[in-house]
Amino acid sequence: MSPSTLRVLPLGGLGEIGKNMTVVEYEDRIVVVDTGLRFPTADMMGIDLVLPDFSYLRERADDIEAIVITHGHEDHIGALPFVLRELGQDIPVFGSRLTMAMARSKLDEHKLREVELEDVEAGVRIEAGPFDIELVHMTHSIPDSRAVALTTDLGTMLVTGDYKFDQTPVDGRPADISRLAELGKDGLLLLCGDSTNVDRPGWAPSESGVGPRLEEVFSRCEGRIVVTSFASNIHRVQQVIGAAAAVGRKVALIGRSMRKNVNIGRSLGHIVAPEGLIINAREIEDFPDHKLVICSTGSQGEPLSALRRMAHRDHPQVELHSGDTVVFSATPIPGNERAVNETVDRLFQIGCDVITTRDAPIHASGHGYAEEVKLMLNLVRPQYVMPFHGDYKRIRMHGQLAEAVGIEAQRVFRGVNGLPLEIDKRGARFGDKEQSGMVFVDGVDIGDVADVALRDRRMLSADGIFVVVATISEQDGSSVAEPEVIFRGVPFRDQADELLDEIRGTVEASLERAAEEEIREIDLLQELLHDDLAQFVYERLKRRPMVLPVVVEV
Amino acid sequence: MSPSTLRVLPLGGLGEIGKNMTVVEYEDRIVVVDTGLRFPTADMMGIDLVLPDFSYLRERADDIEAIVITHGHEDHIGALPFVLRELGQDIPVFGSRLTMAMARSKLDEHKLREVELEDVEAGVRIEAGPFDIELVHMTHSIPDSRAVALTTDLGTMLVTGDYKFDQTPVDGRPADISRLAELGKDGLLLLCGDSTNVDRPGWAPSESGVGPRLEEVFSRCEGRIVVTSFASNIHRVQQVIGAAAAVGRKVALIGRSMRKNVNIGRSLGHIVAPEGLIINAREIEDFPDHKLVICSTGSQGEPLSALRRMAHRDHPQVELHSGDTVVFSATPIPGNERAVNETVDRLFQIGCDVITTRDAPIHASGHGYAEEVKLMLNLVRPQYVMPFHGDYKRIRMHGQLAEAVGIEAQRVFRGVNGLPLEIDKRGARFGDKEQSGMVFVDGVDIGDVADVALRDRRMLSADGIFVVVATISEQDGSSVAEPEVIFRGVPFRDQADELLDEIRGTVEASLERAAEEEIREIDLLQELLHDDLAQFVYERLKRRPMVLPVVVEV
Repeated sequence: MSPSTLRVLPLGGLGEIGKNMTVVEYEDRIVVVDTGLRFPTADMMGIDLVLPDFSYLRERADDIEAIVITHGHEDHIGALPFVLRELGQDIPVFGSRLTMAMARSKLDEHKLREVELEDVEAGVRIEAGPFDIELVHMTHSIPDSRAVALTTDLGTMLVTGDYKFDQTPVDGRPADISRLAELGKDGLLLLCGDSTNVDRPGWAPSESGVGPRLEEVFSRCEGRIVVTSFASNIHRVQQVIGAAAAVGRKVALIGRSMRKNVNIGRSLGHIVAPEGLIINAREIEDFPDHKLVICSTGSQGEPLSALRRMAHRDHPQVELHSGDTVVFSATPIPGNERAVNETVDRLFQIGCDVITTRDAPIHASGHGYAEEVKLMLNLVRPQYVMPFHGDYKRIRMHGQLAEAVGIEAQRVFRGVNGLPLEIDKRGARFGDKEQSGMVFVDGVDIGDVADVALRDRRMLSADGIFVVVATISEQDGSSVAEPEVIFRGVPFRDQADELLDEIRGTVEASLERAAEEEIREIDLLQELLHDDLAQFVYERLKRRPMVLPVVVEV
Repeated sequence: MSPSTLRVLPLGGLGEIGKNMTVVEYEDRIVVVDTGLRFPTADMMGIDLVLPDFSYLRERADDIEAIVITHGHEDHIGALPFVLRELGQDIPVFGSRLTMAMARSKLDEHKLREVELEDVEAGVRIEAGPFDIELVHMTHSIPDSRAVALTTDLGTMLVTGDYKFDQTPVDGRPADISRLAELGKDGLLLLCGDSTNVDRPGWAPSESGVGPRLEEVFSRCEGRIVVTSFASNIHRVQQVIGAAAAVGRKVALIGRSMRKNVNIGRSLGHIVAPEGLIINAREIEDFPDHKLVICSTGSQGEPLSALRRMAHRDHPQVELHSGDTVVFSATPIPGNERAVNETVDRLFQIGCDVITTRDAPIHASGHGYAEEVKLMLNLVRPQYVMPFHGDYKRIRMHGQLAEAVGIEAQRVFRGVNGLPLEIDKRGARFGDKEQSGMVFVDGVDIGDVADVALRDRRMLSADGIFVVVATISEQDGSSVAEPEVIFRGVPFRDQADELLDEIRGTVEASLERAAEEEIREIDLLQELLHDDLAQFVYERLKRRPMVLPVVVEV
């Protein structure tokens, strides 16, 4: 492969929703676009976070010119501390002002204080080795979102990040359509576009339509109002504040990330509130119910979130009661439905009214629908298309939309994580697969070998564990103490003592058999004990708990 | 409480969706309506099934005149074997023909062959102690569904079971509206009605509308077609068969419960297929792709289901490929969304097309919507209403529908599991709460004390386990062998050997400290070891695995 080949290697975000990360290479130099994470699914037991496997960059750290972050959502920025800790704090990081403020706050939490974070104005071109980097202003469910245009000798490629074409965004700054059109007119080489909502026909509703609907809902409420939304959706919080002001209610912010994001948003001017409107959580009890809006985290039913705690009557500051109204200004992310439903039903049990997006249009997605994806394709008129940010279904449907606006099928590249698209003067094609996948963050450890641990955890979680300790004589292998049997997570009751006796008996029998057969090697002994016990336990309990035999020689 | 009080005690199904079971008492005699189960949620680790806690019936087994089952779905019939095994096989069980056939098959699996199962025709009155029992034919997503009318000296109460008012059911037998109207005209004392879809406005679509839509979808397909649906929805399977016949395709049934239910359905005449249309799974390869419809289990993305295995290219008989179409003729039950989405995306990855209810109206709910619930209320004009089968939200909304048709709020009783409604000549009121709740089935054991085991499993699943075995001298408590350290589910890698050495060191240090302080009691020693080790492990790994110290004296 010649160095004047442009290589676009997605390390995350294809064939999945989340952990977006893309390596762009030209003349042996690298720009990384986004460093996102995913949240673990229920079967990833005990795992805290899921990162893209960025091993590919480990030996190439010196070749990285820059990391560019499109916006401040976790699935685009969340892996940044982990990436920088491994690859070095000397890699410059670019992004919009809010995005960099959120990155700073995140890096501070990880005690990474040496990193050079650079606010870049949209439209300004930055040189980074063989690349020119330009951010293009877009609209999304967090302010200051940007697409990234990377220009090399070969042409310009555009990574859209997450976007919608909101014609009436809350901050009055629609996406920079004219710059996109210019890129198209100049001839765009490659479009890597958001696929999240390609399966929804039409256009996403405008964010600014949500505020008036919230105000309508608020005006019908008599008790307290709790609004829950994504803390990073700063425009939404602004609209909650506006609606609260309009109906003469104060606003209290509950939940750590809500307070943190609002603080950042206020300091950068994205959130403006009338003097005295926002009150402290400690002041909640000073105001009558009908004068309060509580803006809270927990829209996804997260176990430790403020709203979930309120629903379980376990929140230190907010006690909900009959007559209060809880407004879900968000939809559940797939996989969170049950947790959200449970929270909602707990609230009904307390006697609250609950308003969701099924009852009123109080949420707007941050991702453009099919017609917006088509508009993007028509604006930038790319030579090649590589759908980003989507599972297999959405990547395929994005390709269908491209074909619908006249882009030939052979110019659409349906990629997977780890498969680089290689473009040179002769054309574009997929190259050889590179390492990619998931890396788990589990406590202080980051690693991909948690597989065995995970398998063990699944086994432990399903059926529990038996530990059996047999103490034998170093001289003749005979048992010198009664075997110890301990179990955890095994649900038997009445017959426990009896069963434990039988297990001890099984152990003694196995040891005798071993002595007869002159099995003295500890490993073999343990294997024998394991097999005998596992079989006995299965016959008695019809479960397969983990059986852990320990043989001690004295 | 006088014996001429009618007591309606729900043991399950209120404040939840699932495990429906209701005890009806009059003159110290009992009829039980439904014995359902729930499937465990992800946090009920290793639990197989969830039953209602029916302890209340244990001392009252001799008072039970009959168990009546409304229909053959697991949430109404699934606990029957467990209930009968504990309360005695001599309790007569009543229900419709199909329901009893399904009960028989279920009891056979549990080797309960003594139970007297009695098919009861709709409209026939059966005497059971102080009760007259009458089944009323209803429509639902399984044939032969019935409401149960229980008449005593006090009047008649109606438990609807699950129902919709399907005007064009597949078997041509709409709900017996005229009998319901008669009950209303005679004056119904109490209605216990299904609340599942009270939150959906309007009327549920008819089941028979699904067939023509399936045929339309089939007629556009070129490769193989896989249709997945609930195996118990025998009318749906009939419609799949009809649509397949119309487009000239054979039908293969895949999945144990699909074959079982179709066999029962065919033997009772609910499923009729042209000669030779249904082929054996082994014959699949004998037919070209465009001549096949595969009717499969797995519509909920269940881990071991046939469809999930096909999606993972792991099914022994069916290998899917590009050009095949998978039709989801079902919607995900809340909580199953992620599993369904994953299955769908796997299918897209293989290259299949996937048709869901978002793409075409190929599913109809079996539960009536708000207008149907109002129709029921208007037909039977009950003196009292107790909403059944719903979480807190739906029970409240059912009450609102009752008020909307003119039933005063004080005649609507919003119950919870375990709270009996007591009705006598003076009126109706809630009595004192009885024991109720969940009982877990876990392997061979059934019990409510799995709580500790569950808590342990959660701990084990989150962070794994360390087992430490210290062997000490009976004489002086000194360590006589190097401590053994074993771990499972703890995800550390490179530093494992080093850490194990340090842990052994910690154990030795603890033992020395114990010797100095003359702690010789094994329990105290183990406690000391536990605390020292747990602290050490947390400091090093920032996780809290279970720490299990075993001290062996020799």
